[in-house]
Amino acid sequence: MIRVGIVGASGFTGGELIRLVNQHPEFKLTFLGGNSSAGKRPAQLHPGLRLDLGLTIEPVTAEAIAERCDVVFLATPAPVSAELAALLADRVECVIDLSGAFRIRTPELHERWYPKARRGTGLADRFVYGVPELVGDQLVGAPLISVPGCYATAITLGLAPLTLGLGLDLKTVVIDGKSGSSGGGVQLRVPDLHPLRNGAIAPYAPTGHRHAAEVGDFLERSKPGSVGSLTMSAYGVSHVRGLLASAYVFTDDEVDGRELQRAYLRFYKEHRFVRVRRNTETLIPVPDPQAVLGSNYCDVTVLHDEEGGRIVVLAALDNLVKGAAGQAVQAANKRFTLPEETGLTMQPVMPA
Amino acid sequence: MIRVGIVGASGFTGGELIRLVNQHPEFKLTFLGGNSSAGKRPAQLHPGLRLDLGLTIEPVTAEAIAERCDVVFLATPAPVSAELAALLADRVECVIDLSGAFRIRTPELHERWYPKARRGTGLADRFVYGVPELVGDQLVGAPLISVPGCYATAITLGLAPLTLGLGLDLKTVVIDGKSGSSGGGVQLRVPDLHPLRNGAIAPYAPTGHRHAAEVGDFLERSKPGSVGSLTMSAYGVSHVRGLLASAYVFTDDEVDGRELQRAYLRFYKEHRFVRVRRNTETLIPVPDPQAVLGSNYCDVTVLHDEEGGRIVVLAALDNLVKGAAGQAVQAANKRFTLPEETGLTMQPVMPA
Amino acid sequence: MIRVGIVGASGFTGGELIRLVNQHPEFKLTFLGGNSSAGKRPAQLHPGLRLDLGLTIEPVTAEAIAERCDVVFLATPAPVSAELAALLADRVECVIDLSGAFRIRTPELHERWYPKARRGTGLADRFVYGVPELVGDQLVGAPLISVPGCYATAITLGLAPLTLGLGLDLKTVVIDGKSGSSGGGVQLRVPDLHPLRNGAIAPYAPTGHRHAAEVGDFLERSKPGSVGSLTMSAYGVSHVRGLLASAYVFTDDEVDGRELQRAYLRFYKEHRFVRVRRNTETLIPVPDPQAVLGSNYCDVTVLHDEEGGRIVVLAALDNLVKGAAGQAVQAANKRFTLPEETGLTMQPVMPA
Amino acid sequence: MIRVGIVGASGFTGGELIRLVNQHPEFKLTFLGGNSSAGKRPAQLHPGLRLDLGLTIEPVTAEAIAERCDVVFLATPAPVSAELAALLADRVECVIDLSGAFRIRTPELHERWYPKARRGTGLADRFVYGVPELVGDQLVGAPLISVPGCYATAITLGLAPLTLGLGLDLKTVVIDGKSGSSGGGVQLRVPDLHPLRNGAIAPYAPTGHRHAAEVGDFLERSKPGSVGSLTMSAYGVSHVRGLLASAYVFTDDEVDGRELQRAYLRFYKEHRFVRVRRNTETLIPVPDPQAVLGSNYCDVTVLHDEEGGRIVVLAALDNLVKGAAGQAVQAANKRFTLPEETGLTMQPVMPA
Repeated sequence: MIRVGIVGASGFTGGELIRLVNQHPEFKLTFLGGNSSAGKRPAQLHPGLRLDLGLTIEPVTAEAIAERCDVVFLATPAPVSAELAALLADRVECVIDLSGAFRIRTPELHERWYPKARRGTGLADRFVYGVPELVGDQLVGAPLISVPGCYATAITLGLAPLTLGLGLDLKTVVIDGKSGSSGGGVQLRVPDLHPLRNGAIAPYAPTGHRHAAEVGDFLERSKPGSVGSLTMSAYGVSHVRGLLASAYVFTDDEVDGRELQRAYLRFYKEHRFVRVRRNTETLIPVPDPQAVLGSNYCDVTVLHDEEGGRIVVLAALDNLVKGAAGQAVQAANKRFTLPEETGLTMQPVMPA
Repeated sequence: MIRVGIVGASGFTGGELIRLVNQHPEFKLTFLGGNSSAGKRPAQLHPGLRLDLGLTIEPVTAEAIAERCDVVFLATPAPVSAELAALLADRVECVIDLSGAFRIRTPELHERWYPKARRGTGLADRFVYGVPELVGDQLVGAPLISVPGCYATAITLGLAPLTLGLGLDLKTVVIDGKSGSSGGGVQLRVPDLHPLRNGAIAPYAPTGHRHAAEVGDFLERSKPGSVGSLTMSAYGVSHVRGLLASAYVFTDDEVDGRELQRAYLRFYKEHRFVRVRRNTETLIPVPDPQAVLGSNYCDVTVLHDEEGGRIVVLAALDNLVKGAAGQAVQAANKRFTLPEETGLTMQPVMPA
Repeated sequence: MIRVGIVGASGFTGGELIRLVNQHPEFKLTFLGGNSSAGKRPAQLHPGLRLDLGLTIEPVTAEAIAERCDVVFLATPAPVSAELAALLADRVECVIDLSGAFRIRTPELHERWYPKARRGTGLADRFVYGVPELVGDQLVGAPLISVPGCYATAITLGLAPLTLGLGLDLKTVVIDGKSGSSGGGVQLRVPDLHPLRNGAIAPYAPTGHRHAAEVGDFLERSKPGSVGSLTMSAYGVSHVRGLLASAYVFTDDEVDGRELQRAYLRFYKEHRFVRVRRNTETLIPVPDPQAVLGSNYCDVTVLHDEEGGRIVVLAALDNLVKGAAGQAVQAANKRFTLPEETGLTMQPVMPA
Repeated sequence: MIRVGIVGASGFTGGELIRLVNQHPEFKLTFLGGNSSAGKRPAQLHPGLRLDLGLTIEPVTAEAIAERCDVVFLATPAPVSAELAALLADRVECVIDLSGAFRIRTPELHERWYPKARRGTGLADRFVYGVPELVGDQLVGAPLISVPGCYATAITLGLAPLTLGLGLDLKTVVIDGKSGSSGGGVQLRVPDLHPLRNGAIAPYAPTGHRHAAEVGDFLERSKPGSVGSLTMSAYGVSHVRGLLASAYVFTDDEVDGRELQRAYLRFYKEHRFVRVRRNTETLIPVPDPQAVLGSNYCDVTVLHDEEGGRIVVLAALDNLVKGAAGQAVQAANKRFTLPEETGLTMQPVMPA
């Protein structure tokens, strides 16, 4: 059994990690860390969790983690992750960070979007960007893994077949993101109160989002020059879990609708967590985050808007699973050369 | 008192017209028409309405309408409106159609998007496009008025200050629309069942929407050549009433953020139903359809995304009020030279 | 014009009072008070409100209120109301308190449920309990009015035809209350965050609620001995505005279903804000708070569960209107001998 | 591997059964039946399901089922189940019916509540009532199992410790049930449309519910005379999945709060799917269906309302899991002497 620690156990992502590690056949939860919630049992903070996990949340010390864990998940804010990762690197077999502290490689870009997450020279470069479908074998044996942002995961999985697969030059990419309220975590903020968030379409990031910077950074690294302008606006809508990212893509390259669909199917043929779906193939239009709720799927649809002269790519995922805890576990599976889907075979809970 | 008839009294828009006409100091409801619901009292179909309106829904006949109404609102499907308008034109002082039957002027475009709404030669040209803020005095005394689509209203009000106000050339406009479930009416469709729609982000029109065609047609008519490419995608999200239209605008013209804001304020200075708002001016990010619920306001925000090299325009309205019944009443006020806001001064109901 | 002040202008009830006073033809808003929000414009705190009210929120002083207001609404927490009412009584023509400070007459009961709301000897007895349908002419000219709690309004309006109308002895009354999240106000509490409240059925007061004490106190005062055991449990459900109170009533008196219905119709014949409705009379089962949203209606349904040997009374209202601000305005209308419905004729906004 | 068939594969319960059987380590899905949906793949009807199940829905024939299944789940309407069960009994090792066709034992009561479900003489008596926590070893080897209704499960699990455990005489039990919209299935009914159901508190069964009859029938069978009057009212509230049943219990027997809690813990000590919880033990008040979403848990809380002279019992479950498909699988596990929790260890998905 692989011994697993979770730091930041009191947040939504922490709770989701507990849920997934608990049902994982090869993982054993050995450490739950959280300074503000130290002394509490998980079920006090996560109303859904089974009551008898046998662990109590403990203060975070590198010693305890190093001693008791083979892998540790950091579900902490970026500045905390930056500090902890520095302490834990080389002391734990694998550190998997779910914050933004190590997602952006380019230093200037990082400083702009995460000014408070000061990271030591060189440390960031050692992190593997943990989107398992797109980084080949880099995760196998990796000591440091940075799990992409929820939107970033959806967008890169949505665009990769165009750039990495078909080799298109994406001249202009306009991203519109719509997400539920769980992305905000358990933070007490007035706009997140139920009476003000229910029924909302909240333009909370109308002219930019750090996940767009992350996507640009990754795509540029993967295939320099493949994306021209990439802009993003993000909205909170009236549900809790799941997001949909729309990418409106303009390219001067020749495009054919059927070939697009085939290219996406081909690109993700070996990747069971990305489902390439037609918009009208089932009861409701897809992709829709409803249809992936609680699961590790990312549903992707590509459409050729011939008349509009553009490609429309839609990607939906559960922000707490494929957009966070699930992807982290998937990356850990790869790290420890387990089958990618180990512990992640749960199907979506729908309707919900 | 102006005698008012409503045809299509059983739908959501019909119900909203009843609500608004009922509270209008100069209007008197004299006819409620609906073939399938004939014989019913309004409160049987509209659970919220006061119970003692004194009218019963009647079968639709041109005679009854011509005899008993000064103005008639058609809240009927486009094909029905096309037929009824032909019968009622010149027999009633004013026919106000809320369907898509007469929104698009260009015949080929109309036929493409509303193939079942066959309209007589010449009739369409007599209709005034009823967005009161943008058509000057054309509505005064108009015998035939076509009320714009809900999305079309939001988008044209959002873009008009750029084209008609500042005279910019909008090279590329990408529209992303998000709306609640009331837009679908009382139609029995599986994806509109509560368990399948709640929690959804439904990409129901990912590569185009007829309201975009309507916007293009109107803007081209108002200022030929001002818009290059205009594309739209539309999504159903998890609330009931209200929509937000986002326009991502790329132009080669010089743009300045402060000037944009001033231009919008200037453009709508005399138009109380359009509120130009800053994104962060209140408790929640705006515009948000929550903040206009039940009212005739359209909230508009313009932002210069300097780094992205684009303008972001956001417009929110209540699809049943400013996007339908309220705008129809506003147009009728203008038609009968009443103050524009007569009967429309209700403030938004928020939180709701 | 009657000059109106509102203290506690930053909360939901405060915002609703602004909305209603703003649309009232005989009221003029002359003072907005709030210590923590002093200096802000109403639209900064209430995203829906029109932007040009011309008033800024001011620190609360008895002098300013006494000088500038004929009537003042206190939308403040009970302890604050208790203090303010003592200062303002006899200095302002009419003080209308919307908190719980003066609802319960019996001192011991008051102290138990509102221990922090210390009220001067004698002051409480001078307050009229402001449920206009049940207190006859007591409100005319009243200098001090206490507006009932939202649940208390629904329950007393639901039960009064049984006790005060039919003279039944209600041996056992079991109340089950279901309400939306707006009842909690703009308070930052973890269970009220959208991700934790959406989808909830939250048993937040499973064994008692102070509104039940208020109801008991009022019914006992109105008709001593008419109610035996009265218990209540309250739940938060997954919407924002409106509540439904169910009363399961056991009596040894003879009961007849048709006579019950007639008695309710008779009891509320002259009271337009109480709508006696049959459960199946419209599209959806009623009463349902949806069908009164934004309006001052209280919808009531009475059913004889013959087999169960009980009477089922259901009452729905908008907690911010008939359950707070609307009822306060209605009481003020009576106080100043205006027609009861002045400024309150808005119809429900539905669907929403 | 146990070969499993599902009839009625197109409904919500059918979809949930597919989800659970698919993740069950000892079950193998060998037949999916549905006459109206024959020829379709499951993912066309269930947007969340993985796409490669390899089975197509087939017309329902007893032959096919008998030949290919060791156990068949009937997720069909009661009249269809009544017919099918008659055909399949003695031809399949185990028939598990999820409808109401065989829940009520007493013939007159059955006929009253399920008049269209005509069942052969004697067949009903052979069915075991499948609430595994309360029927001891009756399920082991049972050829015919009737899965209780969703509300009935919650209520019987909630009351059993009082009657079967403590031996109390429950003089008066008042049930108030609150449930989400998924209970209505994929039926096209106007009140279930999203715009009319969202935000609702719908008193759809205000004076009685057949699940109450089922509970009474079972409790009477288990412990004659233990319950006096049992009445129920049921409401639809504004979420999708999960229900809460409240039981307000009046008894003349002596009751002590602490002893109640201990008795519940004792009663369910060996039953991991029933979690006895204190109302305030976690972030949100419990039991709340949110905290069991997607899982097979039934959360139960018992409170002594000393002042009200009553016991309050609250029970929450996921109506599609512990209230239907999950309980059916749990019963099947017992039938085939597998550990009760096999395939049912998934934790709740929360927040959602």
